[in-house]
Amino acid sequence: MRILMIGAGGVGDAAARIAVERDFFELLVVADYDLARAEATVANASARREGETRLVAAVVDASDGAAVAAVAAQYAVTHVFNAVDPRFVMPIFRGALAAGASYLDMAMSLSQRHPEEPYAKAHVKLGDEQFAMAGEWEASGQLALLGMGVEPGLSDVFARYASDHLFSHIEELGTRDGANLAVHDADGNETFAPGFSMWTIIEECLNPPVVWDRARAEAAGGDVEAGFSTLPAFAEPEVFDFPEGIGPVECVHVEHEEVLLMPRWVEADRVTFKYGLGEELISILKTLRTLGLDRTDMVTVKGVQVSPRDVVAAVLPDPATIGPQMKGKTCAGLWVTGTGKDGQPRRTYLYHVSDNEDTMREYGAQCVVWQTAVNPVVALELIANGTWSGSGVLGPEAFDAVPFLDLLKAPKPEGYGSPWGMEDR
Amino acid sequence: MRILMIGAGGVGDAAARIAVERDFFELLVVADYDLARAEATVANASARREGETRLVAAVVDASDGAAVAAVAAQYAVTHVFNAVDPRFVMPIFRGALAAGASYLDMAMSLSQRHPEEPYAKAHVKLGDEQFAMAGEWEASGQLALLGMGVEPGLSDVFARYASDHLFSHIEELGTRDGANLAVHDADGNETFAPGFSMWTIIEECLNPPVVWDRARAEAAGGDVEAGFSTLPAFAEPEVFDFPEGIGPVECVHVEHEEVLLMPRWVEADRVTFKYGLGEELISILKTLRTLGLDRTDMVTVKGVQVSPRDVVAAVLPDPATIGPQMKGKTCAGLWVTGTGKDGQPRRTYLYHVSDNEDTMREYGAQCVVWQTAVNPVVALELIANGTWSGSGVLGPEAFDAVPFLDLLKAPKPEGYGSPWGMEDR
Repeated sequence: MRILMIGAGGVGDAAARIAVERDFFELLVVADYDLARAEATVANASARREGETRLVAAVVDASDGAAVAAVAAQYAVTHVFNAVDPRFVMPIFRGALAAGASYLDMAMSLSQRHPEEPYAKAHVKLGDEQFAMAGEWEASGQLALLGMGVEPGLSDVFARYASDHLFSHIEELGTRDGANLAVHDADGNETFAPGFSMWTIIEECLNPPVVWDRARAEAAGGDVEAGFSTLPAFAEPEVFDFPEGIGPVECVHVEHEEVLLMPRWVEADRVTFKYGLGEELISILKTLRTLGLDRTDMVTVKGVQVSPRDVVAAVLPDPATIGPQMKGKTCAGLWVTGTGKDGQPRRTYLYHVSDNEDTMREYGAQCVVWQTAVNPVVALELIANGTWSGSGVLGPEAFDAVPFLDLLKAPKPEGYGSPWGMEDR
Repeated sequence: MRILMIGAGGVGDAAARIAVERDFFELLVVADYDLARAEATVANASARREGETRLVAAVVDASDGAAVAAVAAQYAVTHVFNAVDPRFVMPIFRGALAAGASYLDMAMSLSQRHPEEPYAKAHVKLGDEQFAMAGEWEASGQLALLGMGVEPGLSDVFARYASDHLFSHIEELGTRDGANLAVHDADGNETFAPGFSMWTIIEECLNPPVVWDRARAEAAGGDVEAGFSTLPAFAEPEVFDFPEGIGPVECVHVEHEEVLLMPRWVEADRVTFKYGLGEELISILKTLRTLGLDRTDMVTVKGVQVSPRDVVAAVLPDPATIGPQMKGKTCAGLWVTGTGKDGQPRRTYLYHVSDNEDTMREYGAQCVVWQTAVNPVVALELIANGTWSGSGVLGPEAFDAVPFLDLLKAPKPEGYGSPWGMEDR
């Protein structure tokens, strides 16, 4: 396997560090718009393994599909791994197709609100632009694996696992994400520093959250597409109790890929995503919306053109650098309710907890970033050894969950040594 | 009187419209960094009076004192009227002095926090840089009248009036500002749109508020300077009942010029400023501080340099343009407590209310902007006819309040037809 990874930000950097421990690939090209950043990732990751020479750095403009295809061709890569923010999904996706490579990402093409009823009807949904090209991918014989991070990603693998092995009927597939992370500044004061890109947090939290209902789909004659509807931002707050000492966190509906992916491959009555934003972040997001600082179009400020949301992201600490000041754990997981294989009512939380102390010590990466980065590397390994195979545009649910969950959990050096858990409630 | 007005923003534009109704000046040069904006102000104001030819437009860089002096000399102006935001106070102030002109502003040079104890000790205070040049102004024989808008400005005139005519002993001179303004967007939804510059609102609300106490000054042997101390932002919330139907509004301490000006000329035990921010604005300001969007230094965003606070101001509606969507009244005033001239306890609110409907109809200016703009024009008229005279760096309290209050209140065409009020409580 010859991989072109686009993006040497926090997740790309952590993915490189995780990947060098594994033998499944022969080349990993780390490409970024900033060559120095790509070179630093290559140097730091390679230094973790004696004699490591499989990583090389390159420059690429992720917004230009032809440039992506050119770098892919230059290195004869077999797989393009997209590790930049979702604004660049489509050029990278098209670039990979043009280069005849397979493709993997951790976030899907962006949504557009319904022009008349944004808080009721779905319009252009997450991933719609990608699924619209499914025929071309099938024709090429290549695989495009969408949403293969932790959420989406591991959460979707859990959905397939629950359906195959735990439940005979699923009422709700409810991704639930919460954390007890805190960041302290040099003076020891708790400070606001989100665990991943503020650009993405604004995007997913202020967009109308999407839910899927089987009843809506059935009313439309079984059309999966008809099952989607939207809610106002921050809708239906719910306190969810997270495991391993994190405890109760207030969660609200958020627009997220799982809701778009799961109904395509897994049977359920309802699919939701709720994120444990907490009071402070909700208040911050509402203020940004009130002021218009969530805007992504360019505004003129004293003669220069700038996007307000980029400014918000730029003044906050870089999520990739806050690891040393961070304490706590983050939990990604799937809350499944319905009827078990034994015919009895069942309520199960499948989850994966990442402790910042562990990920900093072992990988020099903060826990949210590390947890996102490990899953696509596991998936690439399963694809490399042929355990997972397919063509066309697919989600993680399209593949057998067991080998993924086994490889993730198995102690090193066989596996990735990162256990997941299951709690019946 | 030949006036150079620097700044054709909301306040400058309204001041020009107010001034053309009066005969006291022979020339008003409207200067802005944007010539088109200055020209629009000249055209719109001149059109309000038949045969008006006293206004001319010019370009000036307000950040360059030599440029200010050059324009002042070019037009042989006698008075420089500063109508831009307080970042440009010092170059304009120095430029006027260099040109041998008198000077008037509506906000004073900016403060700097105490490096060790910002929420207890005052450091560089509002106006300190200007008062440090008092000797040069006295030597020049020219007058620099600081803080001559509505607040500071009319509030300071009220302080002098209360001291001369209403009170034998003043316990507190407490400026209290509140409004019931609401702005609605095209769809009729209430929207966030501050009545004056968001840059200035952030500056004055997030800086540590300053208060003055006679006891502190006396403990230091009667040194007025020793009477200043600071508090945390948003300190000591108090519900103040505003007149003319505005009603109760929650007010908090805010850094403001009155606290720096009044103790220099008027006797009182304590001088404070509280502003009726309301819950939403307090929450917005706290969020901006949390995120670092109140910063004024340049940050690099996707290759361009921009100041986060300028971006916040740029995404909000221009305060000068929201008049048509605004409804309600704003009240500026001074709450005075102590002993009346009759020896009895007295509590009096001196105030001026501006109704947006009136100011839009009569001047096409929103009420906060209009209320700020009318007061410096009244002061310039008093200076032009010799009623107010002096040299050096002075505040509004240094002059007899009665002719100002009479001229403001007297019906047109003798006066400005804008009554102020007084309520004993």
